[in-house]
Amino acid sequence: MSKEIRGSMGKISEFTVRRMSSYFRLLAELDSRSVSTVSSEQLAELGGITSAQVRKDLSYFGSFGKRGLGYNVTELKEAIKRILGLHQRWSMALFGAGNLGHALFFYEGFQQDGFYFTHVFDADETKIGARWKSIEIRHVTEAEDCLKTHPVEIGVITTPDKAAQEVADIMIRAGVKGVLNFAPAHVTLPDHMWLRNVNLAVALESLSFYLST
Amino acid sequence: MSKEIRGSMGKISEFTVRRMSSYFRLLAELDSRSVSTVSSEQLAELGGITSAQVRKDLSYFGSFGKRGLGYNVTELKEAIKRILGLHQRWSMALFGAGNLGHALFFYEGFQQDGFYFTHVFDADETKIGARWKSIEIRHVTEAEDCLKTHPVEIGVITTPDKAAQEVADIMIRAGVKGVLNFAPAHVTLPDHMWLRNVNLAVALESLSFYLST
Repeated sequence: MSKEIRGSMGKISEFTVRRMSSYFRLLAELDSRSVSTVSSEQLAELGGITSAQVRKDLSYFGSFGKRGLGYNVTELKEAIKRILGLHQRWSMALFGAGNLGHALFFYEGFQQDGFYFTHVFDADETKIGARWKSIEIRHVTEAEDCLKTHPVEIGVITTPDKAAQEVADIMIRAGVKGVLNFAPAHVTLPDHMWLRNVNLAVALESLSFYLST
Repeated sequence: MSKEIRGSMGKISEFTVRRMSSYFRLLAELDSRSVSTVSSEQLAELGGITSAQVRKDLSYFGSFGKRGLGYNVTELKEAIKRILGLHQRWSMALFGAGNLGHALFFYEGFQQDGFYFTHVFDADETKIGARWKSIEIRHVTEAEDCLKTHPVEIGVITTPDKAAQEVADIMIRAGVKGVLNFAPAHVTLPDHMWLRNVNLAVALESLSFYLST
């Protein structure tokens, strides 16, 4: 939900950003198939939206393509990659070394996009000291000091519901800039930080919508 | 991406359905705080979109609210719940009993929405026979027969990349209607089935967008 995305860039809605992600994926697929040019109509059809929406979304970020000639696939892909901040490396701290945390830590799609976990924290003594790849799982009580010494841009919450705000508070004190929250809990952050809540049920809701019509 | 959502209901884009999910969550939150009425402007502000978009989305599904009086929160919430198909119970089969599969199986948000796993399949002999809650993990070679005897509406893929199409083919033969694919692999289904690919990196991409602006 966009309400969790706060800050100065109020004009670009989260839905626009999500569509930019979609365009990026579509363009990467076209690029991998050596398709060199694409029209807003084709992008729209692939994405299941209107071509006017595609043109409007892109217009927020600049002038792409030529009227009647469409977009150069590689150029537009690289431009969107840069717009989405995917041309740089992002460091992340994982809070919660449970099943979901483990799945995310080893999720290959993150590294492909430039997102790297550099810290893993948990409160379960039996997990402390274990290593995931080369990262040692450390106790959450060490997190604030760790993150002040070795800062990250993004924190990922996969703790139980009750611990979500507590680890968010640690991230606030440690100067983390963005939080991706998988816990089904409401997390409050100061206005200068960014929050994205991920509800895994939303994808199922679009399936149930289409299945029940 | 909407391109994976196929079928007769071409007019309602997946983005509209996602916004309906968002409205549902916002309304549930308002309802829990005993807020009785909400305007499209308030919903739009909470959701970070325009009130025209809110009214347009809702107009696809009927006539809600009264001009100048706004929407009754409970009524609109219940209406959207029904539109999204969340008033009924959905049975699901899980393919892949790894970390992500385990995390999804025990994810509480699914059951709250009426989504229940009734089967778990894996190809790893060491996992077969174990029980998650009351569900026995069975070998994927038994899946087709199991699902023909005890059908499900939805299949969830959390297998490695390589096995994704193979388990999709099993679901096609077993008459599963919708597939939620978490594997970073392209899955092909016949036109009468519904597919939603979940890319967990998309949420991170909206964070990196806002963090880099």
